[in-house]
Amino acid sequence: MSLKRIFILFICFGLLKTAVAQELTAGMGKVKVSFSINEKGMPLYSITYDQKAVINSSSLGFDLVTNAGLTPRPLPFSNGFELTGSEQKSADETWHPVLGEVSTIRDHYNQLTIHLKKKNTDLLLDIVFRVFEDGVGFRYEFPKQKTLNYFTVANELTQFNLAGNYQAFWIPGDYDTNEYPYTKSKISEIDNQPVVNSSTDICVRNVVDRYAVQTPLMMKSDDGLYINIHEAALLNYSAMQLHVDTKTQQLTSSLVPDATGNKAYLKAPCHTPWRTVIVSNKAADILASRMILNLNEPSKIENTSWIKPMKFVGVWWEMQTGKGTWAYSDYADSVDATGKAIPNGKHCGNTNNVKRYIDFAAKNGIDAVLVEGWNTGWEDAFGAWKEKPFDFVTPYPDFNVKELQEYAAKKGVKIIMHNETCGGVTNYERQLDTAFRFMKNNGYSSVKTGYVGKIIPRGEYHDGQWMVNHYVRVAQKAADYNIMIDVHEPMRPTGIQRTYPNWVASEAGRGNEYNAFSHGSPCDHETILPFTRLMGGPMDYTPGIFKLRYYSSDSTRQLHSTLAKQLALYVTIYSPLQMAADLPENYEAHPDAFQFIKDVPVDWDTTNIIAAEPGDYVVMARKGKGTDNWFVGAITDETSRNFTVDLSFLDKGKKYMATVYGDAANADWKTNPEAYAIKKITVTNKSRLSLSLANGGGAAVSIVQVR
Amino acid sequence: MSLKRIFILFICFGLLKTAVAQELTAGMGKVKVSFSINEKGMPLYSITYDQKAVINSSSLGFDLVTNAGLTPRPLPFSNGFELTGSEQKSADETWHPVLGEVSTIRDHYNQLTIHLKKKNTDLLLDIVFRVFEDGVGFRYEFPKQKTLNYFTVANELTQFNLAGNYQAFWIPGDYDTNEYPYTKSKISEIDNQPVVNSSTDICVRNVVDRYAVQTPLMMKSDDGLYINIHEAALLNYSAMQLHVDTKTQQLTSSLVPDATGNKAYLKAPCHTPWRTVIVSNKAADILASRMILNLNEPSKIENTSWIKPMKFVGVWWEMQTGKGTWAYSDYADSVDATGKAIPNGKHCGNTNNVKRYIDFAAKNGIDAVLVEGWNTGWEDAFGAWKEKPFDFVTPYPDFNVKELQEYAAKKGVKIIMHNETCGGVTNYERQLDTAFRFMKNNGYSSVKTGYVGKIIPRGEYHDGQWMVNHYVRVAQKAADYNIMIDVHEPMRPTGIQRTYPNWVASEAGRGNEYNAFSHGSPCDHETILPFTRLMGGPMDYTPGIFKLRYYSSDSTRQLHSTLAKQLALYVTIYSPLQMAADLPENYEAHPDAFQFIKDVPVDWDTTNIIAAEPGDYVVMARKGKGTDNWFVGAITDETSRNFTVDLSFLDKGKKYMATVYGDAANADWKTNPEAYAIKKITVTNKSRLSLSLANGGGAAVSIVQVR
Repeated sequence: MSLKRIFILFICFGLLKTAVAQELTAGMGKVKVSFSINEKGMPLYSITYDQKAVINSSSLGFDLVTNAGLTPRPLPFSNGFELTGSEQKSADETWHPVLGEVSTIRDHYNQLTIHLKKKNTDLLLDIVFRVFEDGVGFRYEFPKQKTLNYFTVANELTQFNLAGNYQAFWIPGDYDTNEYPYTKSKISEIDNQPVVNSSTDICVRNVVDRYAVQTPLMMKSDDGLYINIHEAALLNYSAMQLHVDTKTQQLTSSLVPDATGNKAYLKAPCHTPWRTVIVSNKAADILASRMILNLNEPSKIENTSWIKPMKFVGVWWEMQTGKGTWAYSDYADSVDATGKAIPNGKHCGNTNNVKRYIDFAAKNGIDAVLVEGWNTGWEDAFGAWKEKPFDFVTPYPDFNVKELQEYAAKKGVKIIMHNETCGGVTNYERQLDTAFRFMKNNGYSSVKTGYVGKIIPRGEYHDGQWMVNHYVRVAQKAADYNIMIDVHEPMRPTGIQRTYPNWVASEAGRGNEYNAFSHGSPCDHETILPFTRLMGGPMDYTPGIFKLRYYSSDSTRQLHSTLAKQLALYVTIYSPLQMAADLPENYEAHPDAFQFIKDVPVDWDTTNIIAAEPGDYVVMARKGKGTDNWFVGAITDETSRNFTVDLSFLDKGKKYMATVYGDAANADWKTNPEAYAIKKITVTNKSRLSLSLANGGGAAVSIVQVR
Repeated sequence: MSLKRIFILFICFGLLKTAVAQELTAGMGKVKVSFSINEKGMPLYSITYDQKAVINSSSLGFDLVTNAGLTPRPLPFSNGFELTGSEQKSADETWHPVLGEVSTIRDHYNQLTIHLKKKNTDLLLDIVFRVFEDGVGFRYEFPKQKTLNYFTVANELTQFNLAGNYQAFWIPGDYDTNEYPYTKSKISEIDNQPVVNSSTDICVRNVVDRYAVQTPLMMKSDDGLYINIHEAALLNYSAMQLHVDTKTQQLTSSLVPDATGNKAYLKAPCHTPWRTVIVSNKAADILASRMILNLNEPSKIENTSWIKPMKFVGVWWEMQTGKGTWAYSDYADSVDATGKAIPNGKHCGNTNNVKRYIDFAAKNGIDAVLVEGWNTGWEDAFGAWKEKPFDFVTPYPDFNVKELQEYAAKKGVKIIMHNETCGGVTNYERQLDTAFRFMKNNGYSSVKTGYVGKIIPRGEYHDGQWMVNHYVRVAQKAADYNIMIDVHEPMRPTGIQRTYPNWVASEAGRGNEYNAFSHGSPCDHETILPFTRLMGGPMDYTPGIFKLRYYSSDSTRQLHSTLAKQLALYVTIYSPLQMAADLPENYEAHPDAFQFIKDVPVDWDTTNIIAAEPGDYVVMARKGKGTDNWFVGAITDETSRNFTVDLSFLDKGKKYMATVYGDAANADWKTNPEAYAIKKITVTNKSRLSLSLANGGGAAVSIVQVR
């Protein structure tokens, strides 16, 4: 611990101008942050790791606006400041997430709080730095003050002046979607237009700045530092994207605007989300970091006993791959002479089909069945930008709510509600109580929500403050009804699942579904996800596809994966609500491989990052919560690799049966994706496990104590 | 009746190009509309009155956009049309409004329907003209068609090419407010910037086009024609303003946009509101016209027995004039050590004060008491543009909901609920059911809603399609709970009170309140209102101020009115929910004058326009619904005038007592506003009543049958 408190009361002596070189610093381990004010009164900070520059001196501040509700008046808030004081404190606590990759988290930091005042005014701004062993979080705090009450953020001006032309793994800064494939490039080479233009598989794209990237932004320096910039606790604020100056490697905060161009509406006292810089000389440390979770507030839900991890199957992949439809009819106006909807004969969400999934789930110990396309409206809900795409209580005529709930309950299976909004959020908010009452009355314990399409209120974006608040409102409402939520197309997570633990998973990234309806994602995709999208929280990625060439009408389409890699994803992609996404019949064709999906937990006591390099490979071992069983997942990009996993993390003196679900010797994602081999080995904590991964392949291992 | 059907099947002969002069016409009485298509396939119409040009040949059409929910594609819809057919029909019916200026309305028109098709496409457009004795309504209809389903209106291009440089009575075309004072000018002189800039008393102004005016636009031609342009049945569309070409006197429809600039989101089959042109050589005929009501759909509420006319007093004028406050505390954070709000001692909406109003109402046969400032949040609700200014169920600590309801019920008085949103509409919509349930559970039968401030969803405007739909949603929800609504700051009415008769009144104009908190409205204001704002429906103008110099802190402030004129407004400004706006003590100081307010009905069998000239004077006589009693209201601008009212409308052979509440001989709005004289005269249908109106004065007369 190396916090130095070097705050000197220079302001008492009127020495501010000459004291510009004055530096306040805080540190922990190898990480150090420095703060100063320059001669213009601009607040500045910098970050080093082991005395290497990570973020060079970078400015902090805002363009604010007051009186936005009547006649807006600009209020510059990035210079003219004087330091009026500072404080430090330390904390070292542990806490236990309701669901998680680990069951115990240490929250250990040194905190430096800076108090600023605009000269010759009453205007106050605090900046708080928290320094952890694995990085720095900082946020702006607006104290209660006389002359600033309600105000608007026109721009946040936070800079991250990178200390080098880092290698970056990035997606475009899009106001509406996080579903792009990742590009690997030098910071100097960032230009999102090629990937934006080619991503015709993303229905709503909204990129205003060709040099904007989304966070989490993963980077690597030439001298081997791994650096991750993101944010924590995004609440009542818009998502932060980063504008890249490719010449100077200066990144600037670029907040998602609302319909009028404003970025956030605030009232003092208040604060922004934390801006996070995670840094280490080991890639594995990035994945092991709990800094973002630590920067979030504890659970606002007192009794969390009803929040449960779940594995589920779903009436879904068959629609994604074109076998059937969400809609009951071909057109909204397909009605017969009596006014009854004419079925198209391909509607998947029907009672009989759902029963088939319930039977399959019950037989295989799967907790739940998701059903999409159960409610009326799918014929023309998408793309119309209409006010009311759906109600959330009216089933199609072939979906019997009561019968299915009784059938599922009898078999010990839950049905997962589906509330797709198609972006019609005002419509959803009007019906929120009705929708959740319907779930409660009919025995649903969780809901998958979705926001495919342009948002209404028109002009709002998926990642703007209004929508951020909406998603949280839904989480709160769901908590009132003891219902868990899994949100598709929200803003990308920033650890707020700590605060709202019933928000068990999100999509907010390029999921496995792109392998169904599009040309998919490259083999390295899942090796980047843990360093980017997953930094903020669990992802409903929908792994577990066994039939890797699935698309009868287009023989070129296949997953960029082997079957073994699909199994490994259950370990490498964390989600306490985890889908087995393929069709029952495809699992029934491979019961031996399916055994891993049956066995693998989705909630964990411990996570060890064995080996990891973004864009290349990820190997993790996790211990199932409340068990002695370990599960290893190893995935690679398009290159075959071998790994040796040291099993020293196993309990000393105990014997375990390791079942290795690996790529067959001749497996290859392109030419032979479904070739796998299963072998069983007895192991102890002295064993070393060899894993051979095919091109685009993976390996999954269950390690179960032998008693 | 003079409908000529001259549709000839020229398209069958491929003669379209040469047939451009082909005209289709419809007429009734002196009014005639003509339709044609020019060589570019542009639809055109013109209107004459008694063979005088009113609207010269003017084009019709749209700029549409398809696929707005994904990738918008423009679809020009104003030329390239061919005529594929036309139809005519006639109708002559009578109907009875639930509440109204008259109890029986004749709906008599000839209708011409034009069927158009875009050449070489499947795209269809119908234009429907309804010709009445007093004007023309026309609307666009989009039939169900193959290649146009969901679409967006980028611009409506309807033109009104005025046949002369008319005198106009106008307010600026503002997206957010109708509360400007009227300007009288030639069309060629229209420029709204002076009045926009000087109207600092209007908190939210949003004028994009300095040559835009609001409708109803009242005009008068040099040769004595009175012409009124407005719209009817504004539902699921944005309000129409008019862009004025001051050189050519061409008016073009200018719709209020949404946050993204679009004007309306529609799905075929559908139609626009009716564009209305009312025309006569007598000003009185404009006021007597029921065309706008006739162009609206019949009531969608089946059982309307709970919809009642109401007179009310309210805890309101004392806040408007600065005697007290809506808020309970001075600041939102005024709390004592125990966290309890600190009262400011000036909160008007308190139990004792409300009881005083209830007592006064009960004693004087007033139906109801409005209470503003009863619920928490007023300290900082206004101007902050914050998401949640109010809930609608939490009273201030000094307002006892149950006690007051019991007290009021015991005395036979209703309390009117107040739901101010301060523009926070998403917030209101989320709580709508809760708010109305609260009213129902606590015995409220009506609610005054308000929208002071910028709208949330941010970027939406008061008069845009989304808000138009919102107000209707509230009316529908209110109807579900059998509650009447009085909406302040909605879009200006277009007769939809016929369809939603529980929407009993609106403000949507410059009400009497401007005389309280601002420098008021000129003396001619109320002589223009019936020709403009009131054309669309009842106005909650809040007349009846007796203390005309009211503002202790600013001795220059006074109403531009005499006391007698305030009484006359109960007849000249129609509203079935009508306020007696002054304080009880001011009425108690003039019990003889207050008698008129006690006597005057707010729902009528018959209305006779005795004399009227916009900007100068209005004299009306109305018969109270279900009674034999008549009430006359006469008002003048700043000029004193004498009127002789021929009482031949009284029943033959009956004897009546006329009580004339007139300006005293020495009355003058400026120097002696509160001087009135009351005289009683026995009259019959052969009598003629002489009324002398002071400068800025008026006269009110009750004529009650003597039995």
